Amino acid sequence: MEGVDYLSDERKKAQFDVEAMKVAWAGSHEAFNVTDRMAKLVANDPVFEKFSKPLLDRKDLFKNSLRKAAYAWKLIQDLRLSDEEAKWLRHYIDEPNYTDLQWEMFVPALEGQTTEEQKKKWLPLAKNMQIIGCYAQTELGHGSNVQGLETTATFDPQTDEFIIHSPTITSSKWWPGGMGKVATHGIVYARLIINGQFHGVHGFIVQLRSMDNHFPLPGITVGDIGLKFGHGAYNTMDNGVLRFDHVRIPRNQMLMRVSQVTKEGKFVVSDVPRQLMYGTMVSVRQTIVADASKALSRAVCIATRYSTIRRQFGSRNGGPETQVIDYKTQQSRLFPLLASAYAFRFVSEWLKLLYTNVKQRLADNDFSTLPEAHACTAGLKSLTTAATADGIDECRKLCGGHGYLVSSGLPELYAYYVAACTYEGENVVLMLQVSRFLVKTVSEIGIKQPVGTTAYFGRVKALMQNNCTVQTAKDWLNIGTIVEAFEARAARMAVDCGQRLAKFENSEEGFAELSPDLVEASLAHCQLIVVSKFIERLQQEIPGKGVKDMLQVLCYVYAFFLIHKHQGDFLATGYLTSKQAALANEQLKNLYSKVRPNAIALVDSFNHTDHYLGSILGRYDGNVYPKLYEAAWKDPFNDSIVADGIHQYIQPILRQTLHSAKL
Amino acid sequence: MEGVDYLSDERKKAQFDVEAMKVAWAGSHEAFNVTDRMAKLVANDPVFEKFSKPLLDRKDLFKNSLRKAAYAWKLIQDLRLSDEEAKWLRHYIDEPNYTDLQWEMFVPALEGQTTEEQKKKWLPLAKNMQIIGCYAQTELGHGSNVQGLETTATFDPQTDEFIIHSPTITSSKWWPGGMGKVATHGIVYARLIINGQFHGVHGFIVQLRSMDNHFPLPGITVGDIGLKFGHGAYNTMDNGVLRFDHVRIPRNQMLMRVSQVTKEGKFVVSDVPRQLMYGTMVSVRQTIVADASKALSRAVCIATRYSTIRRQFGSRNGGPETQVIDYKTQQSRLFPLLASAYAFRFVSEWLKLLYTNVKQRLADNDFSTLPEAHACTAGLKSLTTAATADGIDECRKLCGGHGYLVSSGLPELYAYYVAACTYEGENVVLMLQVSRFLVKTVSEIGIKQPVGTTAYFGRVKALMQNNCTVQTAKDWLNIGTIVEAFEARAARMAVDCGQRLAKFENSEEGFAELSPDLVEASLAHCQLIVVSKFIERLQQEIPGKGVKDMLQVLCYVYAFFLIHKHQGDFLATGYLTSKQAALANEQLKNLYSKVRPNAIALVDSFNHTDHYLGSILGRYDGNVYPKLYEAAWKDPFNDSIVADGIHQYIQPILRQTLHSAKL
Repeated sequence: MEGVDYLSDERKKAQFDVEAMKVAWAGSHEAFNVTDRMAKLVANDPVFEKFSKPLLDRKDLFKNSLRKAAYAWKLIQDLRLSDEEAKWLRHYIDEPNYTDLQWEMFVPALEGQTTEEQKKKWLPLAKNMQIIGCYAQTELGHGSNVQGLETTATFDPQTDEFIIHSPTITSSKWWPGGMGKVATHGIVYARLIINGQFHGVHGFIVQLRSMDNHFPLPGITVGDIGLKFGHGAYNTMDNGVLRFDHVRIPRNQMLMRVSQVTKEGKFVVSDVPRQLMYGTMVSVRQTIVADASKALSRAVCIATRYSTIRRQFGSRNGGPETQVIDYKTQQSRLFPLLASAYAFRFVSEWLKLLYTNVKQRLADNDFSTLPEAHACTAGLKSLTTAATADGIDECRKLCGGHGYLVSSGLPELYAYYVAACTYEGENVVLMLQVSRFLVKTVSEIGIKQPVGTTAYFGRVKALMQNNCTVQTAKDWLNIGTIVEAFEARAARMAVDCGQRLAKFENSEEGFAELSPDLVEASLAHCQLIVVSKFIERLQQEIPGKGVKDMLQVLCYVYAFFLIHKHQGDFLATGYLTSKQAALANEQLKNLYSKVRPNAIALVDSFNHTDHYLGSILGRYDGNVYPKLYEAAWKDPFNDSIVADGIHQYIQPILRQTLHSAKL
Repeated sequence: MEGVDYLSDERKKAQFDVEAMKVAWAGSHEAFNVTDRMAKLVANDPVFEKFSKPLLDRKDLFKNSLRKAAYAWKLIQDLRLSDEEAKWLRHYIDEPNYTDLQWEMFVPALEGQTTEEQKKKWLPLAKNMQIIGCYAQTELGHGSNVQGLETTATFDPQTDEFIIHSPTITSSKWWPGGMGKVATHGIVYARLIINGQFHGVHGFIVQLRSMDNHFPLPGITVGDIGLKFGHGAYNTMDNGVLRFDHVRIPRNQMLMRVSQVTKEGKFVVSDVPRQLMYGTMVSVRQTIVADASKALSRAVCIATRYSTIRRQFGSRNGGPETQVIDYKTQQSRLFPLLASAYAFRFVSEWLKLLYTNVKQRLADNDFSTLPEAHACTAGLKSLTTAATADGIDECRKLCGGHGYLVSSGLPELYAYYVAACTYEGENVVLMLQVSRFLVKTVSEIGIKQPVGTTAYFGRVKALMQNNCTVQTAKDWLNIGTIVEAFEARAARMAVDCGQRLAKFENSEEGFAELSPDLVEASLAHCQLIVVSKFIERLQQEIPGKGVKDMLQVLCYVYAFFLIHKHQGDFLATGYLTSKQAALANEQLKNLYSKVRPNAIALVDSFNHTDHYLGSILGRYDGNVYPKLYEAAWKDPFNDSIVADGIHQYIQPILRQTLHSAKL
């Protein structure tokens, strides 16, 4: 059975150059090469095997994960991998652990928030992993609202130290990854108190564990917060609980780039602009958007391959049943997700450029584009993670009963991924931040020229007045028409909210009252961004036979899917008539027929290894049923023919001797 | 800390009689009493403890589940519980196992599909649990399409036996609950072959395991199919894989009520109408709808209580932060789910009556209402399970980060519940069955008087012509207005589909082409049923101060939530103007203020024990944070201060000695 390819006929149907599409998906030849190499490096190394993960208990799971991380760090050093390569190596190991925090939170925080002197001391230690750091912000009773944190850092001028303390149960640090069992140090956020006076929440470098024996230092109580959703998923991570009982640290372990405390206990705000802090947030969220497209592409790849293998109903004259992917109901659920994966991929590439641009400007003390960049990343993080989490579970359902098996890979992918809807800014809270930005933009129409992703508000008058002119389904196949529809919908919803807000005496009350509508308006704005950036990408050169045409089809699918899904918005704002909405929906169904023969090639273009997919249903060779069958027999639960417990708890029932059984 | 009630102030705000609401929710005083007694019986017995489940490995989890089932069966006998009481006892144990199949599939199938003679032999054995049965229908390659099954039952006239055989890998029985490790017998569905001739798919009683030593009988290979979504969830169930190698059973073990095979090998169809078979399906799905309301109510109870305890942002002058439940964004996500739980509860009660009525008619050979009952149960199963699964995960997200902890109860509830979207009829496949019924109803307008839930098609002309007359938000507070809006939307969507279908030469092709739209039309029809039945319930007597008024508010919330969510339908069909839709949405937000003070009392009215909820976040006393903190320390992962693996895999990194470490 080795060497079979049950999908080869499907692969032959492709109307575009798959290798070229792989490059388009990856972003460049270089990006393709590095991801391809790192994915295969991981896939071919038995240390990184992951199918057995769900069978391990928490302690073994964790230990195994530590082993993988150490082995990876050794590989990175032995092979002299670049930072970029190392990042992808970690990515393909596909297992959350303390190194994520080290590289994505601890090091960037040190880089961004310390003085030159502090950098000199701490950065080499962190970059060599001579210390392992966590990012101890959230508390048991406090999440998104940093200003509500309860942990205190009280300055003691006698000893030139801060006293870090957890005054209540709810002030226990709770959730930080890597903190529960691994981290030697933490960046701890606490309320700075000098002379009984509160001076805001700041970060402090606190050593948590002994470098000798890894025991928590005196005054520190630290452990793991317990099991999370899924078998493996985030359970390889030691999210922690941490309490301080008057722990003393030297004064110079406060992160002092933006504000300092002097030896005399004076609180000084430096001239380094606070806005610099937002840069890190923009960076992290930008990565989350890129990860969303990756995660969604995995689920879509599994569901597409399995829908092609799976047959159900529709047998004619005793012939084979119909491939599930040929049902319009399956296509109407699956193909928009396939298109979304590509859409999110391209918007994440754009976001990366935007971030690079912002970083350069920040270096020049130009903060003008920061609010827009902040709104973009917040909104796109919210949009893409919500759609991806839902999309993964939809893919699971599209695999029917077998999607419910852990061996399908989908339950674990969902359990792992869905955390992204909550971490680094809860999705609805983030959309409300976009709303604040939109409301401000609307209020400044005519006063200030809107730029970047809000430039369309400069044409708000036309967008409010002119309705869609589509008359036939074919008229919809026009990018100008599509962009304008999304612009008009977003502009009208934002302006409507603005007008209603203006009627409130207290604008904060109005904002609270209208918040559900504001969230909808923000979503419309963010969807416009995704659609526009997809279209802009298509206007660039994309080499390879048929590649651009295929992406054009996916772009239309994404846009028309949204128009149908949010038909209510488009009709309520009066921009579309119901006839025009129906034509878009008709066109959407036509496009499915163009996607169908290319479906397998489109998911092959993600270039996912079977290791990365971790799914029997999504196997490249489509050899699903024999492998599912094999896997069942390999399960340790099948080690014994008569299961433990049958003798004690089933036979007495069958023999009607339960009254005398020991239960 | 024992005896605290952090929610007591919230409880005092209730504007209705909670005890009376409990009865309204349960359905009657009797129903309340039996559920209350059984829930407490389970909650107070340490054998049924379930918090430690996620920590058990599969074998221990399974063994523990067998123990609970045996203990429960002993209780049922010792306490002489009625069938109704036993059913609730099993329900509150909250753990899928083989007894579910015994009582919900095996016994009903024997009752419904065997002859009187067969009943006499098999029913007492099953009812005393001297045999344990499973329902072996689905195969590795075949799910919903029973006619596609591959297992064969070949009649051998020489020995008067059937030879049961699995000819291919894909013909392996796959998924049946209780089959993997427990069942002694199975009702096996197989293609009947007599003399080389295929006579349809039928059920056969096949003994699978020895009554002496529980080993599989010769020719039978049976085991468990492996891990499923979640830690505990469905992993307490031994969903099985089963293959037959020419297994012989006596001829009289075919289920012979509807068709028989004679000793001579003649296939005879009895005069018992085949429609009787659908009765069982209607019964099972009706139960699923009732379970949906229960499952959703658990999630809503947890999220509501925690949203009341949780505070975030909005602190004024150093005072406490705002309760999360006071945010409109939280209310707009949570309260519609609260209303949905009640809506599903009442429609399930109605469905139970419908089923009783159908059963009586079937007994009199009256099949006239069966198609409608079948469509109702299929559609409502699909609607309520989909909304419940989504609702549970939405509740999890509404609990922020802590909802991601297994100790919140929500990840397990989701992983367990979401299977309902797929089993007993995949949700989209079921909606397409409703579509067939709707299309038929539409095609018979003017020919046949539509009855029951389709009666509104009798007024289709008016529903197509007259648009909504609402002018102010207050106008919406009228049940006639609401019902008519849902009727008009459903009728217009169904008629539109009917008209477009008529344009296809081949109606099957048309049906396939329009299937995504047909699914939407069917959903509209089913939502109308839920709304109408809620309203009908309100027209009956509901005792208790303020109870009916409160339910009226929830009914409006449910209806306006749907109108907003499906605004696109209501606008596209032209029944509502965008102004009217906006007024409904305005009214919806007004109603949230009426729900808010009653929210805790409304979830208390579900009468869920803390055991049943299985959630620290949902505790009755609201004592969330100290209990989360305690639970973390009880986790076995915290048994050792320095975790296993640190010495081997972390210290060499910190000490830069990785090159010589054994990995």
